[in-house]
Amino acid sequence: MESVKDKAILAKSGFIILSNAKTRDKNETLESMAKSLDKNRKKILEANKLDILGAKKLLQRGELTDALVKRLEVTDSKIDEMILGIKDVIKLEDPVGKTISAIELDSGLELYQIAVPIGVIGMVFESRPDVIPQIMSLALKSGNGILLKGGKESLNTNKAIFEVLRDSIKKKSIPKEAFQLLERREDVTGMLKLDKYIDLIIPRGSNEFVRFVQSNTKIPVLGHSDGICHAYVDKSYDEKKALDVCFDAKVQYPAVCNAIETLLVHEKSAKKFLPKIGKMYKEAKVEMRCCPVSYEILKDLKVRKAKEKDWSTEYNDLIISIKVVRSIEEALDHINKYGSHHTDAIITSDKKAGEYFLNFVDSSSVMLNASTRFADGFRYGKGAEIGISTGKIHARGPTGMEGMLIYKYKLIGNGHKVSDYVGTNAKPYTHKKL
Amino acid sequence: MESVKDKAILAKSGFIILSNAKTRDKNETLESMAKSLDKNRKKILEANKLDILGAKKLLQRGELTDALVKRLEVTDSKIDEMILGIKDVIKLEDPVGKTISAIELDSGLELYQIAVPIGVIGMVFESRPDVIPQIMSLALKSGNGILLKGGKESLNTNKAIFEVLRDSIKKKSIPKEAFQLLERREDVTGMLKLDKYIDLIIPRGSNEFVRFVQSNTKIPVLGHSDGICHAYVDKSYDEKKALDVCFDAKVQYPAVCNAIETLLVHEKSAKKFLPKIGKMYKEAKVEMRCCPVSYEILKDLKVRKAKEKDWSTEYNDLIISIKVVRSIEEALDHINKYGSHHTDAIITSDKKAGEYFLNFVDSSSVMLNASTRFADGFRYGKGAEIGISTGKIHARGPTGMEGMLIYKYKLIGNGHKVSDYVGTNAKPYTHKKL
Repeated sequence: MESVKDKAILAKSGFIILSNAKTRDKNETLESMAKSLDKNRKKILEANKLDILGAKKLLQRGELTDALVKRLEVTDSKIDEMILGIKDVIKLEDPVGKTISAIELDSGLELYQIAVPIGVIGMVFESRPDVIPQIMSLALKSGNGILLKGGKESLNTNKAIFEVLRDSIKKKSIPKEAFQLLERREDVTGMLKLDKYIDLIIPRGSNEFVRFVQSNTKIPVLGHSDGICHAYVDKSYDEKKALDVCFDAKVQYPAVCNAIETLLVHEKSAKKFLPKIGKMYKEAKVEMRCCPVSYEILKDLKVRKAKEKDWSTEYNDLIISIKVVRSIEEALDHINKYGSHHTDAIITSDKKAGEYFLNFVDSSSVMLNASTRFADGFRYGKGAEIGISTGKIHARGPTGMEGMLIYKYKLIGNGHKVSDYVGTNAKPYTHKKL
Repeated sequence: MESVKDKAILAKSGFIILSNAKTRDKNETLESMAKSLDKNRKKILEANKLDILGAKKLLQRGELTDALVKRLEVTDSKIDEMILGIKDVIKLEDPVGKTISAIELDSGLELYQIAVPIGVIGMVFESRPDVIPQIMSLALKSGNGILLKGGKESLNTNKAIFEVLRDSIKKKSIPKEAFQLLERREDVTGMLKLDKYIDLIIPRGSNEFVRFVQSNTKIPVLGHSDGICHAYVDKSYDEKKALDVCFDAKVQYPAVCNAIETLLVHEKSAKKFLPKIGKMYKEAKVEMRCCPVSYEILKDLKVRKAKEKDWSTEYNDLIISIKVVRSIEEALDHINKYGSHHTDAIITSDKKAGEYFLNFVDSSSVMLNASTRFADGFRYGKGAEIGISTGKIHARGPTGMEGMLIYKYKLIGNGHKVSDYVGTNAKPYTHKKL
């Protein structure tokens, strides 16, 4: 079997050809991929049966959870969704080759800034095999080579889907080598060392895993470890909106990064609002961990007292910490100090307070009277999401295909030399927009 | 004295206020800075005298070079240039707060992608004190906090310039704390650990120093270590253009990253072109290190034989390696293999070959019939340059103020909750461009 380094070199050499492929060739290849998934359902479902059998054994031994086994399973309707996902990518505009800026430096000397793919992207994901068609189609459309590494529990399924997709590539301008599947666990650490061939790592998985990747590679990492999100209810607010947003942001799907972990409430609103949202949380079995002031208000609901550590904890569960603040400034300070700059919301009927919050909270998504749960690539209209970035370099927040692109400068001259533009008789630059 | 961590925390707290400052306040502050430099010439020149005295002692002991002492020196005309530099930044458009995209997710639920500053930038530079007004004005205009660390030889000058600039800040919306000067050598390594407070490091200095920074921090780094650039003379070419470009790219200023280190020549052009450029190089005292074929052609000029190592060496000096290739494909392979993806040029009169080269060379700047020496922020019309990036994430090539920006998403709702948009009776998203 080829080593991870061999595969990375192959992907890099494929990338430079793929980066120049025509939109039509890319879309036609995506069409064949979608058809091929449809034709090879049996192969994929059978491979998946093997993985499910293996997973059930691990489940009996307590090494896997029910939820994980469920996520592993591929059904006919899941294959339908994969096919639809590829068709969505066909509809996305081809971002490669666009002119971002154009400027004349001097007569006959023209500079073009052109969008190009980044190169080779290393993607590490957990047991959901539907990531493969999604990421492979985005990489193909954006002209990037890709190394895919999924969870070992889904290896048979991943291989089957990957082979079906890769074998459907028939065009010379789309080199198969640009797409590589990694199969061994040690390939992940191997990949992290290949900064010469891999341009970006996108890890999807537990916070611990993402942090491990960030600390063990020189390659840039796009992703997020923590998602400590907040909702703040201001002194003037619409009660129905506040209850809707604060309940949705915590309860609708608590296991994900854009669910809130802390509720902040202005002291003027606390006595009226907290008992109502507290009752709703209680009925939904949300455990509440309260600051001294909110504890006094909610103690009949058998809430707990919050510890300092609670303000910086991502529960990913039906638990929420609650704090009463004296002002919007205190809320901002709390969020900028304890939060993870992911997604934070204000509920207010005061337009100025809303603007102030959106401007002064340093997070990738800031919401006014809307649930933090909307922070998601699909909901933001990006078609598909390659990840959510809490970094502030390159891409921030929910990131679609635009996160797989960079640019190059093309300078077109006519024998121009710099020595004419320096010294005593230096020619001036025109710097005229084209 | 405050620790580097204290200073980073101050810069971060200043940044969030500065990030919301009005364009007029920023430009008026830049005006006062320019005036203040003019009024305080004596203070700056006297501080500089101290540094020059110290540097001359080091020169006598052989610990500094003449060139470095020269770069340290501040004169009245250098202060004039600093003032002009600040005025140029005043003229640059304010990039903060621009709407990058706007989309309706559903009726009353609107998503805005807004340009915002990155946060706190750590800038490490060598002994040129004129970096301080340049970078400080760019940071101020783009709303970023900044930690500045210059060479120890220019500490007195750096402090004087920094104080003059910072003391001229009088507006509440421009917090002085956003700007910090680091004075101790150990502050550099201290800074590399502060990934909680510093969002981007820009190192300017020797290749070794940049590589040291890249290997010793989790903070993203914008910069370049190597500059291994090429010029390729194709089989059909205009002789005057080829001689002009190949001479300029090597000789005009060989110590910089965008000068070429290797000349590639098509075998059909070698016998005619090499003797002519060889003679020009010889007269300019350029040492030539040749492949076997070019050696045969140029041996009368007392050239040397190239070793394998030469193809991946950045000389930064009057030395060039020369190779004859059989095809444009061989030239591309050589450049993508040995180059540093910085800047590469083709000289050709064949339009198709030119396009092919610009598309298939994976470098941040690619030139057609123009010298590689043009790859520079000022020449590219960016006003000022924060660095040249050989990275492919965030910013690539010569980078101006745009490299100090990212965006945030603002979602404006009306009590919208995600639970309405999932499940059996899910509302659809409209995803309409605004």
